Amino acid sequence: MERVTATYHIETALPVAKAAATLAGEQSSGTFVAVPGETAELKARFAARVERITELDSVAIPSLPTGRPLAASYRRAEVVVSWSVENFGPNLPTLVSTLQGNLYELAQFSGLKLVDFDVPPGFAAAFRGPAFGIAGCRRLTGVTGRPLIGTIIKPSIGLSPDQTAAMVKELVEAGIDFLKDDELMANPPHSPFDARVDAVMRVINDHAQRTGKKAMYAFNVSDELDAMSRHYDKVVATGGTCAMLSLNSVGLAAAKKICDRGQLAIHGHRNGWGMLNRHPLLGMEFPAYQKLWRLAGVDQLHVNGIANKFWEPDDSVVRSITACLAAEPLGKPLLPVVSSGQWGGQAPETFRRTRTTDLLYMAGGGIQAHPDGPAAGVESLRLWWQAATEGLDYDQSLARYPGLAKSAAKFGGPL
Amino acid sequence: MERVTATYHIETALPVAKAAATLAGEQSSGTFVAVPGETAELKARFAARVERITELDSVAIPSLPTGRPLAASYRRAEVVVSWSVENFGPNLPTLVSTLQGNLYELAQFSGLKLVDFDVPPGFAAAFRGPAFGIAGCRRLTGVTGRPLIGTIIKPSIGLSPDQTAAMVKELVEAGIDFLKDDELMANPPHSPFDARVDAVMRVINDHAQRTGKKAMYAFNVSDELDAMSRHYDKVVATGGTCAMLSLNSVGLAAAKKICDRGQLAIHGHRNGWGMLNRHPLLGMEFPAYQKLWRLAGVDQLHVNGIANKFWEPDDSVVRSITACLAAEPLGKPLLPVVSSGQWGGQAPETFRRTRTTDLLYMAGGGIQAHPDGPAAGVESLRLWWQAATEGLDYDQSLARYPGLAKSAAKFGGPL
Repeated sequence: MERVTATYHIETALPVAKAAATLAGEQSSGTFVAVPGETAELKARFAARVERITELDSVAIPSLPTGRPLAASYRRAEVVVSWSVENFGPNLPTLVSTLQGNLYELAQFSGLKLVDFDVPPGFAAAFRGPAFGIAGCRRLTGVTGRPLIGTIIKPSIGLSPDQTAAMVKELVEAGIDFLKDDELMANPPHSPFDARVDAVMRVINDHAQRTGKKAMYAFNVSDELDAMSRHYDKVVATGGTCAMLSLNSVGLAAAKKICDRGQLAIHGHRNGWGMLNRHPLLGMEFPAYQKLWRLAGVDQLHVNGIANKFWEPDDSVVRSITACLAAEPLGKPLLPVVSSGQWGGQAPETFRRTRTTDLLYMAGGGIQAHPDGPAAGVESLRLWWQAATEGLDYDQSLARYPGLAKSAAKFGGPL
Repeated sequence: MERVTATYHIETALPVAKAAATLAGEQSSGTFVAVPGETAELKARFAARVERITELDSVAIPSLPTGRPLAASYRRAEVVVSWSVENFGPNLPTLVSTLQGNLYELAQFSGLKLVDFDVPPGFAAAFRGPAFGIAGCRRLTGVTGRPLIGTIIKPSIGLSPDQTAAMVKELVEAGIDFLKDDELMANPPHSPFDARVDAVMRVINDHAQRTGKKAMYAFNVSDELDAMSRHYDKVVATGGTCAMLSLNSVGLAAAKKICDRGQLAIHGHRNGWGMLNRHPLLGMEFPAYQKLWRLAGVDQLHVNGIANKFWEPDDSVVRSITACLAAEPLGKPLLPVVSSGQWGGQAPETFRRTRTTDLLYMAGGGIQAHPDGPAAGVESLRLWWQAATEGLDYDQSLARYPGLAKSAAKFGGPL
């Protein structure tokens, strides 16, 4: 029988092999004493199996509270566990409960992080995954050979539909490829979703008719399920090409239901992600996270960016981009959404480290607060990327392209 | 305009007032430079407002990585922030994105935990909340004056529908009030959901017809949304009274969609909760968590138990029970589900600390592995609770009721 495998980083006061067996036991038998029905045959067929243990370092202080007396030391290890797919069937929420579930509460661990997991072909076959992905998003926007350049309508809240549309007009005339609602802007009384879509799509469709270039706008449909479906219908009906979901807030089953419709590219916003990832030994790593949403059918997923305004180190950002671009599972990469404090000056380092232009490269203030206005902001981002793909670093880019000086003066500084 | 308020514990190298302003700014304007559309009028109407700051202690070492050089010290504080309800409308996912969202990624914080939040009447009015709650679950099971006694079918995985039904038969004949699937058991090939419901409900309905006592069985409907709806229909059609959701795995919007149907009590399993809560300065506290699921319409919610097998301290368990039993929001308390390593011996301490019997008190091994069998296990739990509500402590209970000795010998030890 095919198996799902998962890799964890653990920290434990127990011998590592014993802790790993506890982990596997909690996610198979699940009680603190043997019960009558638990036969050897059942165990062999359905129990989680510890596949591999790699011991790492030890520390004196536990990373997380355990509710137990302090031990002499805490061992760290990488542990690989597997389950028969027979345990869940093609059911993403139950896969999540199996991979994560009660594990994070076990007193036997002072640290536990899901690093990555793999599903076998028989499981993956039940999922379509991204309906558009990188190729589809490029086709919808007509962008080749460089990242899609995107921006966020700011301020996050307070703008009326007409104010929003006026901003969109300026930005599409500036040549932007992609725009999005902020995650705080969904369907508030001062900017009802339908009115906003009507106002924005009028601008986008007019511009497309005149120029042949149709910007992709990710309308934030995040809401109760019926409202999300209505919002989705509205975007489709007005000729829109993308819907945005706050993935962690909406949740897996509802997000998949929306993705399953397949008429719009799905922009996956990961707000709340820090809660799941920021501690080095709690929660999950991005390679695992992106697989869940890829199976659910998300097309674009946020990864922060080089020198971002958040806490995340560049190494982690690079690893996230790589994870999105990997073919597996499903043979369908995700389009990484680079954002957070981006303005173009990070393009050389982004390209040097990832060697890809398959990105949606987003700047908010970095475009809209450009000294010469949004059109200059968009042009500056394209030029930074041109320099980056020519192999220039930051200083070389500025030397070769004097047009970049104003953005560097406004937003730059030592990277 | 009515406002939503939220309380956070924060840790920051910045002056606390500045950090609080950053928090509020990220969740209102949301970019790193001022943008043209951000007028004073918009700010006054839509910006988050820092309502109160209470400085606490300082520490030398940051609780979470910040991606920034080490500072001299890190200040801790409790901060209360508010938003106008005009920012979101009655939209739970967007409320979550506003309360949590990008905050956990801000480099300005080395710790951030959502402690609690309050919604104004105008927001709450859009939500029905628990369709059954404590009174409804008592009515469905016919239990008064003591906790509902429940158990989990174990092993978690591997049993066929007939094997499951055979266990259920033994347990309902033992007088159990409540049973549930494990969160790892949903709709696997070896125990298809419909076949399991048919087999189990035949037993429960037969027993109810003979005795007048109908046990509540929480079938784990957790799955993709359409499958959950079908599973829900199946439970209703066979006379079942309860469906279980793995809340974190299914997610908020799909869970609410299921709760909205209102024909079954919803058993909310919080597997994955440790990821959101275990670190003292990351994620969220249970009082906030239970409000989200109460607004979504969950009736029963897991809280662990006294002397549980997990890491959680008793104080935290007591606080969770208190949070579930609070009338607000909606004037509708949740039924706290006490579980994890419970066997009856914890009843005296549970009652002493909470003074309530409005509990679903669950024991897995604590019932099914009782030396004299499950019927003796159920009887022993009832007797422990009788002793507890008479005001007896652990030793006094054993002295007064010799029938408790066997459970204490098997499961007990110093509490």
